[in-house]
Amino acid sequence: MALLDYFRSTKSNTASLAKERLQIIVAHERNSRHSPDYLPQLKQDILDVIAKYVKITDNNVSVEFDQTDDLAVLELNVTLPDHK
Amino acid sequence: MALLDYFRSTKSNTASLAKERLQIIVAHERNSRHSPDYLPQLKQDILDVIAKYVKITDNNVSVEFDQTDDLAVLELNVTLPDHK
Repeated sequence: MALLDYFRSTKSNTASLAKERLQIIVAHERNSRHSPDYLPQLKQDILDVIAKYVKITDNNVSVEFDQTDDLAVLELNVTLPDHK
Repeated sequence: MALLDYFRSTKSNTASLAKERLQIIVAHERNSRHSPDYLPQLKQDILDVIAKYVKITDNNVSVEFDQTDDLAVLELNVTLPDHK
């Protein structure tokens, strides 16, 4: 899978600090402006789901959002203490 | 955001068929084997969340999973009819 290589190449420097990291990317490709834009709500729902598994605080999550006419990309990054 | 360029470069050919596409990628970077592996359950939870917004059938979802020692990548692709 090409994506595995992509993420391996972008592995964060926090790796050397023995952190665990969870990254979630949502790409929504719309070819019509009539398509509903549910990404903001979906973002919150995904954060709620992640919170079932990992401890989320204001300090350990970063959210980025970017879009063009027909493509929206949402990126969530959660950094966690290592489980040792 | 570099990811926007990444997804633009990999836009599917279905674009020309006026499809809507939702792609969700989860990358879990673990630096210890003691970290819990919740990705299988998280996958199901995310599918449940997506189903709130788009109609999911056995035919319009593809799931890929790949992992190395310290990195697991889950990819969900949902293709939808265009809303015209």
